[in-house]
Amino acid sequence: MGVLSQCRSIHVGRDHDHLKWSKKLAPVLTVSSGDVVTFDTVDSSNDQITLDSDASTIRSLDLGLANPVFGPVFVRDACPGDVLKVEVLDLEVADWGWTAIIPGFGLLADEFPDPDLKIWQLDKGNGYARLNGAVRVPLRPFLGCMGLAPATEEDLSTIPPTNAGGNLDCCELSVGSTVFLPVQTHGALFSCGDGHAAQGHGEVCGTAIETSVKATLRFELCKDQPWVTSPHFQIPPASQLGVTILPDRGRYAATGIDPDLLEAARKAVRNTIQWLVVAKGLTRNEAYMLASVAGDLQIVQAVNMPNFEVAMSLPLGVFSL
Amino acid sequence: MGVLSQCRSIHVGRDHDHLKWSKKLAPVLTVSSGDVVTFDTVDSSNDQITLDSDASTIRSLDLGLANPVFGPVFVRDACPGDVLKVEVLDLEVADWGWTAIIPGFGLLADEFPDPDLKIWQLDKGNGYARLNGAVRVPLRPFLGCMGLAPATEEDLSTIPPTNAGGNLDCCELSVGSTVFLPVQTHGALFSCGDGHAAQGHGEVCGTAIETSVKATLRFELCKDQPWVTSPHFQIPPASQLGVTILPDRGRYAATGIDPDLLEAARKAVRNTIQWLVVAKGLTRNEAYMLASVAGDLQIVQAVNMPNFEVAMSLPLGVFSL
Repeated sequence: MGVLSQCRSIHVGRDHDHLKWSKKLAPVLTVSSGDVVTFDTVDSSNDQITLDSDASTIRSLDLGLANPVFGPVFVRDACPGDVLKVEVLDLEVADWGWTAIIPGFGLLADEFPDPDLKIWQLDKGNGYARLNGAVRVPLRPFLGCMGLAPATEEDLSTIPPTNAGGNLDCCELSVGSTVFLPVQTHGALFSCGDGHAAQGHGEVCGTAIETSVKATLRFELCKDQPWVTSPHFQIPPASQLGVTILPDRGRYAATGIDPDLLEAARKAVRNTIQWLVVAKGLTRNEAYMLASVAGDLQIVQAVNMPNFEVAMSLPLGVFSL
Repeated sequence: MGVLSQCRSIHVGRDHDHLKWSKKLAPVLTVSSGDVVTFDTVDSSNDQITLDSDASTIRSLDLGLANPVFGPVFVRDACPGDVLKVEVLDLEVADWGWTAIIPGFGLLADEFPDPDLKIWQLDKGNGYARLNGAVRVPLRPFLGCMGLAPATEEDLSTIPPTNAGGNLDCCELSVGSTVFLPVQTHGALFSCGDGHAAQGHGEVCGTAIETSVKATLRFELCKDQPWVTSPHFQIPPASQLGVTILPDRGRYAATGIDPDLLEAARKAVRNTIQWLVVAKGLTRNEAYMLASVAGDLQIVQAVNMPNFEVAMSLPLGVFSL
């Protein structure tokens, strides 16, 4: 790429992981605005899940090791009040990934108490991963975590995102997208990780198609974007997204309607699972996982009180004709 | 259309309005599965807002007359447990519409206490409506209300949707889409109204581009869809949607992150308004209205506790180059 050849290209390795967000961490490298960095990241289980794993692996998972991020990268001249613009130039996922139901985690955690694990083969040539003979999920790789060190003196978990970014899990941040993060501390201290090969809006079962990823990102320091006080995104036209587009066969959606917005979201997922089980013949666990890796949660209306309405929609292209 | 010529085509008029959902209402006509019905509907203000109206009209609006629906239509053989499939065959909007900020109504009602009104000219030839010289909103007409009489003996308001449908305000239900509604009472008793020329997911200021609409719908009674216990939708491939597609210039999004899902949604809207005001030069009221008619609220992740994340995204095609 011409772009790459004009900039310094620098590498952050798999050993540069950390499990907390903190402004006290020593940077692993220093870059300037305009530099390109390649991050070689480990999956969110921190290599605890392998191709040979099964549901019993989930039971013995050490969650204290989960969701490592890689960095931090110190950006010269970055000060609180600035904005770090991060362009996603390239994402290279592994040839396999996993999706788990982890007890206590996920939007319907109380209804799915037992662990489960699906290992996916990622067919990068054709752009999908098969759930079974009749269902395939389009690959749309992105980094679940991109964030900066927070302003606080405290160490923060890497699980919840904050206004400084982190575990955003925004499935639209594929190659070609840009994220804008408000700088909280001197040098910005950017880290990333949590590679996903596919996920829908919501990540409802708690995991995506989790995988290791080699990510190439370009940094630019912006001094003139005071409106960015939480993570903002820019997503290119569909034709410029670096993902395989499966044939568009339309979408199917189930709504959840409730006076509580969270319960409306839970109902939308529950009703989608009901459809996938009864009409499409999936098991409940398969349906929950498919909803997480390919279903999108949308707030349809948030104003017709007292009832909120959330829809989960799925691309019909996931089903064989 | 060949389809229309093969079916009976029947008309529901502007005088067949009602302001409550009730299974006790006398049907205005009876149809069979397969029939096509044209509904001539009045806008959600019930003709109280005219081309000459301004913010003072909103102050004197009689909300007791708002959100009329037209019908009900009795569907032969429809029983509780069945599903009514409604295909949207045609939608003909007026040549103008309106968006209002109504005190006490909308996702940020407490932050927008004063009434405001925008009258839009709907440029159906080019497929957009202009907010101002630099901002245009793509038209994507749909019916805000499509619903069935509820099972209850009570009369219900037409403002909140229920599992029987009603004020769904789902902006994806353009020409070519299908909605599936669970039948609650003998004859189903379908009504519709609340024409919208454009709206984003969320309808955050409380109103869309409201307009009168002539809608042509085809009904089909389904006895074999037990999974439909709330409204479900099917949306065709983008190429088959009967709407003008403006050039895709990508999207911009602002997130809201909070331990409360509703507050995360409110923050996403607030952060979008901040961007539109500071970076794009809109007034606060224009920004709130634009977010309502063109912005989409998505639940980005609902699992990385304790913080939910909601994004509002806007198509960049709304801005002049």
